[in-house]
Amino acid sequence: MADWQEITGGVTAPKGFKASGIAAKLKSSGAPDLALIFSEVDAIAAGVFTTSQVKAACVDYCRQRLQAKPSARAILCNAGQANAATGEQGWIDATESAAVLAQALGISADSVLIASTGVIGQRIKMDALKAGIPQLVAEAAADGSDKAAKAITTTDLVTKSFALETLIDGRPVRVGGICKGSGMIHPNMATMLAFVTCDAAISPQLWQQMVSRAADKSFNQITVDGDTSTNDSLIALANGESRTPAIIEPGAEADRLEAMLTEVCMGMAKAIARDGEGATCLLEIRVSGASDDAAARAIARTIAGSALFKAAVFGRDPNWGRIAAAAGRAGVAFEQANLRVQLGEFVLMENGQPLPFDKAAASDYMKQAAAGEYLKSDTVLVAVSVGNGSGTGLAWGCDLSYDYVKINAEYTT
Amino acid sequence: MADWQEITGGVTAPKGFKASGIAAKLKSSGAPDLALIFSEVDAIAAGVFTTSQVKAACVDYCRQRLQAKPSARAILCNAGQANAATGEQGWIDATESAAVLAQALGISADSVLIASTGVIGQRIKMDALKAGIPQLVAEAAADGSDKAAKAITTTDLVTKSFALETLIDGRPVRVGGICKGSGMIHPNMATMLAFVTCDAAISPQLWQQMVSRAADKSFNQITVDGDTSTNDSLIALANGESRTPAIIEPGAEADRLEAMLTEVCMGMAKAIARDGEGATCLLEIRVSGASDDAAARAIARTIAGSALFKAAVFGRDPNWGRIAAAAGRAGVAFEQANLRVQLGEFVLMENGQPLPFDKAAASDYMKQAAAGEYLKSDTVLVAVSVGNGSGTGLAWGCDLSYDYVKINAEYTT
Repeated sequence: MADWQEITGGVTAPKGFKASGIAAKLKSSGAPDLALIFSEVDAIAAGVFTTSQVKAACVDYCRQRLQAKPSARAILCNAGQANAATGEQGWIDATESAAVLAQALGISADSVLIASTGVIGQRIKMDALKAGIPQLVAEAAADGSDKAAKAITTTDLVTKSFALETLIDGRPVRVGGICKGSGMIHPNMATMLAFVTCDAAISPQLWQQMVSRAADKSFNQITVDGDTSTNDSLIALANGESRTPAIIEPGAEADRLEAMLTEVCMGMAKAIARDGEGATCLLEIRVSGASDDAAARAIARTIAGSALFKAAVFGRDPNWGRIAAAAGRAGVAFEQANLRVQLGEFVLMENGQPLPFDKAAASDYMKQAAAGEYLKSDTVLVAVSVGNGSGTGLAWGCDLSYDYVKINAEYTT
Repeated sequence: MADWQEITGGVTAPKGFKASGIAAKLKSSGAPDLALIFSEVDAIAAGVFTTSQVKAACVDYCRQRLQAKPSARAILCNAGQANAATGEQGWIDATESAAVLAQALGISADSVLIASTGVIGQRIKMDALKAGIPQLVAEAAADGSDKAAKAITTTDLVTKSFALETLIDGRPVRVGGICKGSGMIHPNMATMLAFVTCDAAISPQLWQQMVSRAADKSFNQITVDGDTSTNDSLIALANGESRTPAIIEPGAEADRLEAMLTEVCMGMAKAIARDGEGATCLLEIRVSGASDDAAARAIARTIAGSALFKAAVFGRDPNWGRIAAAAGRAGVAFEQANLRVQLGEFVLMENGQPLPFDKAAASDYMKQAAAGEYLKSDTVLVAVSVGNGSGTGLAWGCDLSYDYVKINAEYTT
């Protein structure tokens, strides 16, 4: 089905991209905290940002930049301070960060996009950031993705990176990404950042549309605790270095590229959900039969985000009632007589009514899937059908454990 | 300000109402599980029901009944089986329950409203219910509210009852209520039920409008875990037995009655939030400065429902960042430069930026308020202002504790 293959290299897998990550002493731990993604040539740029009314200066900055010019050469990301709720000074710091990097790279300041993650209400440690820029630029390398992936993390337990390659017109085209995130806002640590690179040549309008749609099917379909961050950002660059024909209108080539982009975003999104605070397993919800895809996605998202169902998954309890109840409150109309709920291979509910099933075996399935011991899947799968419509949707989440409460309650400011 | 006083008596505080509650062996525990509220004369009836697409037969039944005729004489409520996801048979059972009670009371079947709470997917134990009806009717008494309040509970730790009295035209008018609920759906136990009685005389249209608006300001503003039940119902009866002038149009008298009704509903709603699964304290969010009340309520509700903030409250952590972030994602537009956040008497944030404050003292405030040792309040108070608008709103919730996870994960079907 999919005519692509997974490759290594993250954001530097696509041709013409370099990356680096260093410890610039923004984090008090001394861990890597400053990352650069750099395109050797001007790249078409698109972004999707937090919808929160309370947003970081970098989000406002990128929105303005992309509105003025849909291209960029570099992304600078700092971890440690979110530069959110920092007022006028936050904007000044954001602007200066971009300017300092641009100067070091010898590019214009409006070719730099920026992102921050860390403690809300704290300004970026500008002296440390500026002192680190020369090393960051000097170390930028075609194999630097892993270092960048590490430097953008905060409370993440693992780094997250994914890349795919396909052929267009006989030539390789690649999409790669790195991302970070585990809770929506861990002890004031701002959330989800994702950076995608691509070496296809594509028009700015098509690229922004593809990136927005891919975000809707991936990052907007994961939930750890329902909280949106002030800093959530997805930035995607396409630099054309694959030397394949420019994609300037919708069609088969555009569809293939979008499918691969979506797959990369989904892979990264799942990695974030799996790394959810306190999570012991990944949860995948597949919804079909809805009136349209948006309706199906809304139902999937609501089930994945139900605290009651998440707690049941932690208890390995095949609780169809909570799945059905969550589906019912998703704000999407359907006939409950058409509701079907399946957990792994166990059909728990059909025609809106519970079926007899082997509860111990269904619970065992959850235990095995969560432990990664069920066939080749390490995911607890829930499939829900709500009717005969053509709408389908996926969402991902994790279970709600004691550790989630511990992580988020026992932190003291 | 308020020209009413609290009285005892719950749903039997208003004149002309009787109630009873018995153990009919619907619950395997043998605890009381069947309740009756009865009006000696025909009462104007209004209802607000779950918006879930997956709903119990009793919800469909009441909606149909109230659409056909906005009056009733009796409410029958069973606890133990939710009669949700029970298909055609569930409808038959609901209809028969109402008919059997009507016959025992000597009233017409369309004068009975019904409600169920308990395990989803289970039919009402009809033989037990029918066998219990004679005793239930025989025991109906003018001081029976507490027994009814007990018989509608499932996992509730306490019964919930509230009544107020005022004077209209020199004569006493009363509004009383009982309710149940603790988690939105505890181990398949369906949720929030509230029954309100009133002895004022009022037109059906006004009564339904008042009840809907009161629900919006009370039951729709509480959240334990964000999950809506298949059975959520508020049913309100007004029987005119106060012999005060009939309220047939909007005006001062209508406003006074609505204010008292709203206060009763708020009192009951707070009692449900306080009894939230695993809760160690009640959380009250006050939002002002929004464009309108609905916007303010949406912000308040989002803060009260934020898992991250709830976990912070459990940790007694004065975490303004999580309050601000939750406000920002409520789907309501505001200028973040206008955001002000106050916790008890501590101003944590002003003009969209954090203020220095004594974190230990703020944490102590949370500890004292949660323990009921802060002045006369047993509530952790959060006040948020988002601008200069006239919109205000309240919401209530509880903290997210280890016990919430324990209660909802360690249950085994």
